[in-house]
Amino acid sequence: MFKSMAIEWTGDTLKLIDQRKMPLEEIWVECRDHVETAHAIKDMVVRGAPAIGVSAAFGYVLGFSKAPKNSKVELIEYMKEVKRTLASSRPTAVNLFWALDRMEKRFEEAIEKNFDETLKILEKEALEIANEDLEMNKQMGKNGLKLFEDKKDVTLLTHCNAGALATSGYGTALGVIRALKEAGKNVKVFVDETRPYLQGARLTAWELVKSSIEAVLICDNMAGWVMKQGWVDAIIVGADRIAANGDVANKIGTYSLAVLAKKHGIPFYVAAPYSTIDLSTADGSKIPIEERNHEEVTHIMGKRIAPEGVKVFNPAFDVTDNELITAIITEKGVITQPYSENLKKLFER
Amino acid sequence: MFKSMAIEWTGDTLKLIDQRKMPLEEIWVECRDHVETAHAIKDMVVRGAPAIGVSAAFGYVLGFSKAPKNSKVELIEYMKEVKRTLASSRPTAVNLFWALDRMEKRFEEAIEKNFDETLKILEKEALEIANEDLEMNKQMGKNGLKLFEDKKDVTLLTHCNAGALATSGYGTALGVIRALKEAGKNVKVFVDETRPYLQGARLTAWELVKSSIEAVLICDNMAGWVMKQGWVDAIIVGADRIAANGDVANKIGTYSLAVLAKKHGIPFYVAAPYSTIDLSTADGSKIPIEERNHEEVTHIMGKRIAPEGVKVFNPAFDVTDNELITAIITEKGVITQPYSENLKKLFER
Repeated sequence: MFKSMAIEWTGDTLKLIDQRKMPLEEIWVECRDHVETAHAIKDMVVRGAPAIGVSAAFGYVLGFSKAPKNSKVELIEYMKEVKRTLASSRPTAVNLFWALDRMEKRFEEAIEKNFDETLKILEKEALEIANEDLEMNKQMGKNGLKLFEDKKDVTLLTHCNAGALATSGYGTALGVIRALKEAGKNVKVFVDETRPYLQGARLTAWELVKSSIEAVLICDNMAGWVMKQGWVDAIIVGADRIAANGDVANKIGTYSLAVLAKKHGIPFYVAAPYSTIDLSTADGSKIPIEERNHEEVTHIMGKRIAPEGVKVFNPAFDVTDNELITAIITEKGVITQPYSENLKKLFER
Repeated sequence: MFKSMAIEWTGDTLKLIDQRKMPLEEIWVECRDHVETAHAIKDMVVRGAPAIGVSAAFGYVLGFSKAPKNSKVELIEYMKEVKRTLASSRPTAVNLFWALDRMEKRFEEAIEKNFDETLKILEKEALEIANEDLEMNKQMGKNGLKLFEDKKDVTLLTHCNAGALATSGYGTALGVIRALKEAGKNVKVFVDETRPYLQGARLTAWELVKSSIEAVLICDNMAGWVMKQGWVDAIIVGADRIAANGDVANKIGTYSLAVLAKKHGIPFYVAAPYSTIDLSTADGSKIPIEERNHEEVTHIMGKRIAPEGVKVFNPAFDVTDNELITAIITEKGVITQPYSENLKKLFER
């Protein structure tokens, strides 16, 4: 059994809170096999790389539970198809492939065991993936605490949702915020609404309110003015990918926040698991920036806001240069400048 | 007779395009007296300081056209009430009072004339207010041209709506953009959507498309990333108030844009009429920043996007420090640093 804000594993069903409908409705989508799980991932019921990885692992278990039991050959083919179906649900999500490879390895090792034994092994592995992610987030939170040792009152500003809803349950950037709260500090968080998909307004605000952490919602263009008032002690965000030189790809708007933080002398922290660091990507210029559907900008919650005939630019991510980043908080420790050197050291350890 | 994108005077009716419903619907609201005009101003059918001033002037004419004709004493009392009604429709709009004072002066001068003569005088004055604003905007546009003399292709980025919809017809920041287009340059404009009220997505995008000027809509948090790509030649925005030292109060988000422009070495221009400069305000810290309704942030187009229980900060404006501003474009000329000295000189001329 496993249960977080976003993911529940009952033993034979994967339940996912439908993040597309939040915060207006809290509806749990039930997945009873790998096809339903793949659909849920594809349709953005669940989002956030770690949460997708965990969901796919449980999807793999569900796939196995419905597998043909007559022939090993048939079973092997079937499980390859299960993996393919889940892997194609979000083809750019690295955690997804990583989790599925791990599940497949367990399946291959257990191939001589009987059905029930293999099912138990696979379920155990999926639960481990979920719990490891949770522990990793908590460790990240602990590591982040050191950056705020001298403060009793901490006001942070965050962007998008790098929280329990995006992971198996504690969050990366919001995990550090949770750790500060658990350490007895008075925590207040300015939440960028994060257009176009409004993850801040819809998800982070919901998650913080639900966790009794003071949240103040602002529009993205207000962040600089809030910083200018002297109200913000630090910015903290998650990351989609961290290059070898410490450049960080994250939700569009992150780069502007980092520039504004620098201007106001405010520390800019990135909280992300070690697995986000990609030493094979030399620097941020090598990270492809996906452009998303223009309707995300011309419409809000299904309602048109812009005239016909207007062009749109809608990059999903941006890249923040390493020199704008004060520290990268991982479960293996806090990394600071020079990043090229220190990230390499982290991998050599 | 007078007709712009937003305001039409037919001789006995003031028609205003309903800017609350744009760009989805293009509905013209008809005002037949000063009370209907005051409601239209109050309810934000019309917005933008110059457009409000012009509307109020025509509202004053409409008020007079329905005035009692029997006694001068009664008429004078009645016209005071007309002015009060219109003045109270938007109590912070300086242009509104200025236009009404000007109308009242004409009324007082004409008090001995007969009704029809006075009506003609008042209508002429309102038309003059409208046409003077138009001419002022066009002159501002011409003055702005000098800043782009060396360029054939010009890409600008703008925020909010400082266009024909906010003035009597040509626009301040968008007026400069129109002038560039009319001068035969290839003009492209990145348009910040401008949360929370979406003036950029709803109004500026509409106005540019309508005027066949290439417009690319972005979310506010994308502006910094667009600048980083090297795509923007200059930022150009309007102003609500300019202090004696050149600090500029304008729509929330302007300050962040100016910081980002500086970081990327992009000129940051403010286009505003001379009347926006307020030498009695020493600097930006003396400009009160109105906080608006929280529902503007928690809801979009009437639809809730944020959870119950979240706090909100919703400043209507911010202040951009003079050192971030490359030049202020007015109808009387282009002003550059040092602003304290050069703004004073402008007034002494």
